[in-house]
Amino acid sequence: MIPTHPHMMQNFDYMTPTRLIFGRESILQLPEVMAPLGRRVLLAYGGGSIKKIGLYDRVRELLADFEISELSDIQPNPKYNPSVLDGVRICKERQIDVILAVGGGSVLDCSKAIAVGAKYDGDPWDLITYKAQARAALPIVDILTLAATGSEYDCGCVISRTETNDKVGYMEPLTFPVASILDPVYTFSVSRKQTAAGCADAMNHVMEQYFTADTTLLNDGICESALRSLMENGRKCLDHPDDYDARAEMMLCCTYGCNGILSLGNSYSGWPCHAIEHALSAYYDITHGEGLAIITPRWMRHILSERTLDRFVKYGVNVFGIDAALDKEEIAQRAIDATYRFFESMGIPMHLREVGINDSRIGEMAHHIAVNEGLENAYVPLSENDIRDILTASL
Amino acid sequence: MIPTHPHMMQNFDYMTPTRLIFGRESILQLPEVMAPLGRRVLLAYGGGSIKKIGLYDRVRELLADFEISELSDIQPNPKYNPSVLDGVRICKERQIDVILAVGGGSVLDCSKAIAVGAKYDGDPWDLITYKAQARAALPIVDILTLAATGSEYDCGCVISRTETNDKVGYMEPLTFPVASILDPVYTFSVSRKQTAAGCADAMNHVMEQYFTADTTLLNDGICESALRSLMENGRKCLDHPDDYDARAEMMLCCTYGCNGILSLGNSYSGWPCHAIEHALSAYYDITHGEGLAIITPRWMRHILSERTLDRFVKYGVNVFGIDAALDKEEIAQRAIDATYRFFESMGIPMHLREVGINDSRIGEMAHHIAVNEGLENAYVPLSENDIRDILTASL
Repeated sequence: MIPTHPHMMQNFDYMTPTRLIFGRESILQLPEVMAPLGRRVLLAYGGGSIKKIGLYDRVRELLADFEISELSDIQPNPKYNPSVLDGVRICKERQIDVILAVGGGSVLDCSKAIAVGAKYDGDPWDLITYKAQARAALPIVDILTLAATGSEYDCGCVISRTETNDKVGYMEPLTFPVASILDPVYTFSVSRKQTAAGCADAMNHVMEQYFTADTTLLNDGICESALRSLMENGRKCLDHPDDYDARAEMMLCCTYGCNGILSLGNSYSGWPCHAIEHALSAYYDITHGEGLAIITPRWMRHILSERTLDRFVKYGVNVFGIDAALDKEEIAQRAIDATYRFFESMGIPMHLREVGINDSRIGEMAHHIAVNEGLENAYVPLSENDIRDILTASL
Repeated sequence: MIPTHPHMMQNFDYMTPTRLIFGRESILQLPEVMAPLGRRVLLAYGGGSIKKIGLYDRVRELLADFEISELSDIQPNPKYNPSVLDGVRICKERQIDVILAVGGGSVLDCSKAIAVGAKYDGDPWDLITYKAQARAALPIVDILTLAATGSEYDCGCVISRTETNDKVGYMEPLTFPVASILDPVYTFSVSRKQTAAGCADAMNHVMEQYFTADTTLLNDGICESALRSLMENGRKCLDHPDDYDARAEMMLCCTYGCNGILSLGNSYSGWPCHAIEHALSAYYDITHGEGLAIITPRWMRHILSERTLDRFVKYGVNVFGIDAALDKEEIAQRAIDATYRFFESMGIPMHLREVGINDSRIGEMAHHIAVNEGLENAYVPLSENDIRDILTASL
């Protein structure tokens, strides 16, 4: 039985040197930010959305004095082959000085892998899988167009390798963006589906830090505030896609998601939902936030026990306003139901079958996760059987 | 009438590059942190407390391979003359590479002023008063021994010039510490008086960001959590000075106080209590946190009005758990009473007379504040008369 308090505060070593330039027309700072980093720029982006909203033209105009090479068509769940490899090749051939990532978390993640790969002589996969240590990286600046992953304020990236069904997380302090330009207006045109998935992604980032053995009053309060804010503002963003303040607050909540500021001194939970979801999107290339929304309530139900009960009670009372006078088990069950219903109310498909995943590879994925993700050390340890049960309950 | 929500989210430009090395025995990282910064070190500290707890010997031992010069006797409300001037002189004479500040906020603030002064040819006071722009600074590393000011995670310092009754705040991004070594064990021996004053200081930092026109759900929740945590852990630190987790959480709450992370996107309040307190400690050299604790509830009472009522209601309900069903005015009054009583319960003298300040210079101080602090632009604008009333009510 883990006591609710006092918890043990863990040692930590934390730094986030990224400059956040936030707000309307913050893009005007772009030339000043880029100038000291060099003249030869790799402009990395995804599909046509940045052209549709006029951002592409704006960037080209502001950087008229720079020498721009382009890497486009970076896909969601960004691919090692071709995106990272193409980017690295361009950087080496054109002696790129700085990468400008314009887009969402996938473009930014891909850019981080390119940034280290460009300064490495061997196969960049060695770096991403920690077989070799990055010694240098190109500097990265980003202009964010999707509130979700928090990649704009962390030094991590997730890269998929289709041929091996690998979706690998890589953390390297050299890849902190130098500056992230965050103008909520660029997110006005994000679709309902992506807005909801981004909200679910960010909420799960918070939960992965909140549901753990050792926390503090401070961190619990920060996480609960972030969750309440994400729900309120996520809902507003769906109802009024051009509500500046809702888009802005959602963007900032997402930005805090993965750099650790929500949980300094907490013990590490193992990020179990991410570990499981990474296999889903590696095998089926589904939308990450949707996969997380599907997995989260099933994982919660699976780990609810006498040991974890108090955590779920705190979550239910402080995040969803459930009456603290109710029976603890009742509060916990209602909290899990409320989590499910919130995601559902955002229009997220809440069953794996709805996103094209049936039971045919559940066993294979459970095995892959159990072997690769270290969930035997998670907040609540998960065996291959546990993982299979969670996946099956999510069908 | 300012609406409670929606607020306008403000643009911001934020960066905090300081590395936080937090926890038991984090000092073991000191040599590794210092090595790339240079061999010639200015060791800055205050009185004998770091010798009493063995920290001085530990530092000298860990830095046996470095060339150490010392600046000691840095006083609370650190003085331009002699401390800053002596430090600058030593840095120039000995060609110091890096400043190691060992102590509380005063030692660190003094070190920041020295860091820019050492790289400037003229009178350092020009920098501190923004008559000249700093172009370079010595790097700073600190080992914190007092949880209070947040100077370990910001780029500000407050320097006093006795002969002119000036206590001046100076913000300069070049003075962010490279690294702050935060071992809560070093705060076990902090006196009851200083523990309480540090807690009040940190609480007021939060309040100066919470009581403002435009806020977000996220920031309000973060600030309310920080206040609840500071009260709970501050109390524990008084009752059990060697409670590691209480000291640790209090330390982290204090660290977040002044770098802006509690209020990104909020409008600027003008930090009125700090503006008023700076005059008190400039004229009378009182303990900063005690001055703040005395001023805060009187300032609250003074600005409570129809316009600010909702803010005080939110504060009362979310920080003190006052019944939300009560009349709003009643909630606000109870919240202000609870603020006063909390400080009083920590053993803080709650009247200016108790810290040696009578009414003889109230008018002079009110005038000084009104002329120098710009409080006509505060959340609730304060005239010289308002300031005099607040000071008089604090007697």
